[in-house]
Amino acid sequence: MKQIAIIGFGNVGKCAYEALQSAPDMDLRCIVEAPGVPVPPSLSGLWTTDTKDIRRFGDVDCAILCLPSRMCPDAAEELMKMGVSTVDAFDIHTEILETKRRLDAVAKQHGAKGVISAGWDPGSDSIIRALMEAMAPRGLSYVDFGPGMSMGHSVAVKAIEGVENALSMTIPAGAGVHRRMVYVQLKPGASLEKVTQAILNDPYFVHDETHVEQVGDVSALLDMGHGVHMTRKGVSGNTHNQLFEFSMRIHNPALTAQMLVNAARAALKQPPGCYSLIEIPVIDLLPGDRGELIRRLV
Amino acid sequence: MKQIAIIGFGNVGKCAYEALQSAPDMDLRCIVEAPGVPVPPSLSGLWTTDTKDIRRFGDVDCAILCLPSRMCPDAAEELMKMGVSTVDAFDIHTEILETKRRLDAVAKQHGAKGVISAGWDPGSDSIIRALMEAMAPRGLSYVDFGPGMSMGHSVAVKAIEGVENALSMTIPAGAGVHRRMVYVQLKPGASLEKVTQAILNDPYFVHDETHVEQVGDVSALLDMGHGVHMTRKGVSGNTHNQLFEFSMRIHNPALTAQMLVNAARAALKQPPGCYSLIEIPVIDLLPGDRGELIRRLV
Repeated sequence: MKQIAIIGFGNVGKCAYEALQSAPDMDLRCIVEAPGVPVPPSLSGLWTTDTKDIRRFGDVDCAILCLPSRMCPDAAEELMKMGVSTVDAFDIHTEILETKRRLDAVAKQHGAKGVISAGWDPGSDSIIRALMEAMAPRGLSYVDFGPGMSMGHSVAVKAIEGVENALSMTIPAGAGVHRRMVYVQLKPGASLEKVTQAILNDPYFVHDETHVEQVGDVSALLDMGHGVHMTRKGVSGNTHNQLFEFSMRIHNPALTAQMLVNAARAALKQPPGCYSLIEIPVIDLLPGDRGELIRRLV
Repeated sequence: MKQIAIIGFGNVGKCAYEALQSAPDMDLRCIVEAPGVPVPPSLSGLWTTDTKDIRRFGDVDCAILCLPSRMCPDAAEELMKMGVSTVDAFDIHTEILETKRRLDAVAKQHGAKGVISAGWDPGSDSIIRALMEAMAPRGLSYVDFGPGMSMGHSVAVKAIEGVENALSMTIPAGAGVHRRMVYVQLKPGASLEKVTQAILNDPYFVHDETHVEQVGDVSALLDMGHGVHMTRKGVSGNTHNQLFEFSMRIHNPALTAQMLVNAARAALKQPPGCYSLIEIPVIDLLPGDRGELIRRLV
């Protein structure tokens, strides 16, 4: 059995807790959450507010980082320096490669293993994207997300001054183009105009058509369903018009957390270093006897 | 540049030839085909009828086996013993694991690398099947093939006495159930009733609803388009109703050949041994700089 820590107990952290209950090869050692968050009574024996404290619960093989993307690289580095492997769902696409290289050096120095960007996009979708390109090396791929809540975009809006609560919905417009529908609940006295401008200038929104709407209660709108539709039309060898399509409708944090648990399993099978999911054999994501998996799945 | 041999120059072999033309990291060294097959004039300098003869063309890193499944294991073993790595699209699902184990031992003994069952099913579909199970560890998956020509089933019908030519179409009936539509062109004097009985009793057809129809000219019906529709509905962590779907419409030998070329590239990046595609990172299927691939595809 591998010993696991969950770092961050928000939506993804809670789903990681559930996914670990069903994982036949992993035990939950401890949960790290910021001070001030109410501790569920049944989890008080596993709870700490300080990452440095996790050794108190016994050896930890891998920490599942269920933190906002911005916090993941430093948290991973701190854990790797303690000799703990890490997985995260870091989703800032433009910074994945440099972050992976930075963590790869740390991991190798400390004998740790890391998997970066191991949610669903980046994550499981990355595997399908790479496979589709292999199947048709020339051609065009499109990824359409939604309709669904973007956790990253919603968190970005919540960080804006004057915002009490926010929901950013991703609406697919086809061929990889998206519209953002942002629902904001303002703090007393906040200016909708200022908040709207801050949203439109935020790097998360600056490239997409974005609509901001004020609502009285964001919590009444929350639904964690999400989806993706990936297509590729291209050329295998010299043969045109090869058509590939992948789609899913999923509970977003549940799939993110499930992939993180899978990635933790896979991480511990790799040599020290930091990997993206496309660098890891898919069989390593699964528990159980490898011969049986090959017999059943190949 | 890796040096490649194509073994077998039927539909898949010809498509492998085309896929190699577009591969930036591979050169075609030679083609091995049985005696008696007409040699295309432009390929006569690369042509031989004897596998043992391939060294005459210079070093070969990997041989792409474009042979009927039944011939693949022995051909792979012969080549591995010459120190040549191999890839094949062996599609007899019930024999994959034992064949892989047999070739794994040979490969390790001779420093060769092999990838077995590296077409599209088994092959690229296997990667998606394994990934879907990782995303929702509990649940049900279905694979629906077609409509399209089954090469294996058509070959089985052609081997029946009295059959001049045959086409077996796979018709998806949903939830992994298929109907077989078999079009037969009979030899003079052959009995449709006897041929039909032989088809219905053949192991390839005995489990499926099968219809046999006599036609004057099978060649007028041939279209190498095929397709697949894979679905999984299952549970991520403790969250039900997660829905996943993959489908493609493809030219069958072109995709098989493209995957074989990808697998040859990947094989040469592995330690000696014989692998299925789910044991190989998808990034290894692609040419080019790994950092650039990660930046673009993760």
